[in-house]
Amino acid sequence: MSRTTLYTPDIVLTMDAERRVLTDTAVLVAHGIITAVGPRAELVAAHPEAEHVDLPDRVLMPGLINAHHHSGMLRGTAEHLPVWEWLRIHIDPMHRVLRPEEAEAAAWLCYAEGLLSGTTTVVDMWRYMEGGARAASALGNRLVSVNYVGEHPDFDYFDTLDDNERMLREWTGAANGRIMPWVGLEHPSYADGAGQQRAIAMARAYGTGLYTHCSESEIEIADFRDRYGARPMMALESLGFFDVPRAMIAHAVWLDQDEIDLIAARGVGVSHNPVSNMKLASGMAPIAEMLAAGVEVGLGTDGEKENNNLDMFEEMKVASLLGKLRAMDAAAMDSWQVLHMATRGGAAAIGEGETLGAIAVGRKADLVAVRTDTPRMTPLLPAGDHANIHHNLVHAVRGSDVDMTVVDGEIVVRDGRLVNADLDELIDRVRLLVPDLFARRAEWMAAQDSLAGLFTP
Amino acid sequence: MSRTTLYTPDIVLTMDAERRVLTDTAVLVAHGIITAVGPRAELVAAHPEAEHVDLPDRVLMPGLINAHHHSGMLRGTAEHLPVWEWLRIHIDPMHRVLRPEEAEAAAWLCYAEGLLSGTTTVVDMWRYMEGGARAASALGNRLVSVNYVGEHPDFDYFDTLDDNERMLREWTGAANGRIMPWVGLEHPSYADGAGQQRAIAMARAYGTGLYTHCSESEIEIADFRDRYGARPMMALESLGFFDVPRAMIAHAVWLDQDEIDLIAARGVGVSHNPVSNMKLASGMAPIAEMLAAGVEVGLGTDGEKENNNLDMFEEMKVASLLGKLRAMDAAAMDSWQVLHMATRGGAAAIGEGETLGAIAVGRKADLVAVRTDTPRMTPLLPAGDHANIHHNLVHAVRGSDVDMTVVDGEIVVRDGRLVNADLDELIDRVRLLVPDLFARRAEWMAAQDSLAGLFTP
Repeated sequence: MSRTTLYTPDIVLTMDAERRVLTDTAVLVAHGIITAVGPRAELVAAHPEAEHVDLPDRVLMPGLINAHHHSGMLRGTAEHLPVWEWLRIHIDPMHRVLRPEEAEAAAWLCYAEGLLSGTTTVVDMWRYMEGGARAASALGNRLVSVNYVGEHPDFDYFDTLDDNERMLREWTGAANGRIMPWVGLEHPSYADGAGQQRAIAMARAYGTGLYTHCSESEIEIADFRDRYGARPMMALESLGFFDVPRAMIAHAVWLDQDEIDLIAARGVGVSHNPVSNMKLASGMAPIAEMLAAGVEVGLGTDGEKENNNLDMFEEMKVASLLGKLRAMDAAAMDSWQVLHMATRGGAAAIGEGETLGAIAVGRKADLVAVRTDTPRMTPLLPAGDHANIHHNLVHAVRGSDVDMTVVDGEIVVRDGRLVNADLDELIDRVRLLVPDLFARRAEWMAAQDSLAGLFTP
Repeated sequence: MSRTTLYTPDIVLTMDAERRVLTDTAVLVAHGIITAVGPRAELVAAHPEAEHVDLPDRVLMPGLINAHHHSGMLRGTAEHLPVWEWLRIHIDPMHRVLRPEEAEAAAWLCYAEGLLSGTTTVVDMWRYMEGGARAASALGNRLVSVNYVGEHPDFDYFDTLDDNERMLREWTGAANGRIMPWVGLEHPSYADGAGQQRAIAMARAYGTGLYTHCSESEIEIADFRDRYGARPMMALESLGFFDVPRAMIAHAVWLDQDEIDLIAARGVGVSHNPVSNMKLASGMAPIAEMLAAGVEVGLGTDGEKENNNLDMFEEMKVASLLGKLRAMDAAAMDSWQVLHMATRGGAAAIGEGETLGAIAVGRKADLVAVRTDTPRMTPLLPAGDHANIHHNLVHAVRGSDVDMTVVDGEIVVRDGRLVNADLDELIDRVRLLVPDLFARRAEWMAAQDSLAGLFTP
């Protein structure tokens, strides 16, 4: 990171305040920070010392921020069930038998998949997060590490708040700040009252964020009413969940307008996960209303078992499609709004609204180069009445069109390949581990008298 | 096609009647026809004369059938409008100025994009279809050629039935039968009564199919009621649209159960186009009801301006997602149903139910190899309780994972590259033509007093 690097793509999609799309432009990066965005010839002449990364037939855009993810290795093996059943039959039993080395192998492969398709920051709620932190440190991505915590006698098979506090103590600020540990709860109801209050206190003590799933499926509304006599966001507010430096909710499908106004007022971030919400038949989140109210909304793929890939370009497309369908209006959820969610919106939701999410002077150099020499980028009009670069990025491009990914000023994907790891080895490691994980899960399930009592939402 | 070729992938997803997924299996192709699907060692030993195409880390599956498409070169330049407005402002004026060389250049690039992502057959409703037929002949894909016909004084700026008849006369059976000309009407209402009857008569005379858009947006129901006093499918039935060897409807979003029962009884095929239906806010088609009634349903991407890419793997994923959302049931529209639509369903809808859509002895050799050495195929379980290959293909894989495409026994994409054309040249040709097309359209529009009278559905 001591190097100075000058990137000269054909086009720069800045996602700056004016959403400028620039040609004949260079981007100068020093010590991991964007230090100039300006006329190409001028910057090239002024910086002979810089390493010159020329990017013909490429658009350079901010790295994508995956605001909700779980690493894992169950892809395609837990299908066709509504969310609570699916948790009970497939997911929770897996958590009961999961081992640290399995969790770490899954994280390596998932972060690699993300980097290869343009994700520079991933919010990963996963287990044994030291392994995830090691993976991100080595591969080069930015990681909001969120322990998958259960702190309740009925949910004693997840990470604990002790595990989470160890992450906060040992990894905060690691890898030049690329590792950002938060406090996580699988769901507010996966902690008892004392656990909830300790989670809140920990986020305050460490000056960090608190992250949980909430209001993914309609059934949760009745559950909160029974437990707290209030709708979920009001209940969380009463419990103090929002009295933290940063609070974030994954899904938020079933919010009413009062809840939206509340979380907008309290600065609570949301991850919108349209593929997961459709695949698990959770519903259509009121994203237009959230954006109108000023909620900071990011986009998330959810995990390999909910999606089933981690391609943020595909997620952008589905966010656009679902927004249009929900409104029954082809003009709803326009391409700029979608790009905003995948970059600046996600950045703001994780509390990095001033440092990530745009190509602008002073921001961290998290950059993605997307190929334009493809049918998906033909025609390509960066400006004018028929400008289509934003529409092409949202509706036509897919993650495989990314061939360079830069995080914190370091090139971590070059020519479509990981710089810091061998993808085949990461794949092989997961494949070797899967049979034993499945066998242990089956063994655990066979030992139960009945699945009926395993989980009640 | 005089060669005998033996393909030995790791896995064969047959889409045969039993939906077998086979390992240790070889597929033998002679003269463009699958002549054996059997034990690998046995077939290798028995056919030393065959060219051996070994496919490690690949699953071989039937080529995908894109049941609704329009070639074009407006990608990303006609956005954020409901379907009828969008036709009026962007699309119909383009048709008024479109030239044959532009139509042909668009077809070359679109068919190339399809082949590169696993589409072996495309149903293309487009203009000046001689150009499309030349493109398909040369590139190697199978083409159901559907002229984009307007036969009405108000719609005199499309192809005509004379153009369509010339295609039928000159191209039927060309390229070893890969070119299959049908009769097309942009919409039933784009022809007057005489035009409708001539279209029907032509399909009967040439023993071919009749294809039109219908019931894409809800507004059409009132329009049919006003014109014919009946819902669209009943009106088409009365007019004789279904008294042809094969009739096919694109979209069919707004059918009621009586209409579904009618088209099931009459063997009318449907193309389901979920991305387009979401993007243009057309609605959610009753596909589960159609499949239950026995309607032959294929999947289509629609065009570069409605989607905005031609990736049938993405279309499969969105078909699954939309089916689950519509039913609010995560078990709805399962992966096998989706794979069926993209292969056998599309084949049956175009009247090729016995010849295309499966890897089985006697069928034409339209094959696609999908990489399995990817995160998207990890883990990969071809059989057993947790078999996930069908789920991975529908929900995780994207078109860029295809690296070999075979049509009629000929390898037309090898190592992810076109065998019969230079992709860069096809892209450059479109890019050169676009500015002039846009300029002529703008000129035409500027010459109108008002856009108000241009089109009324």
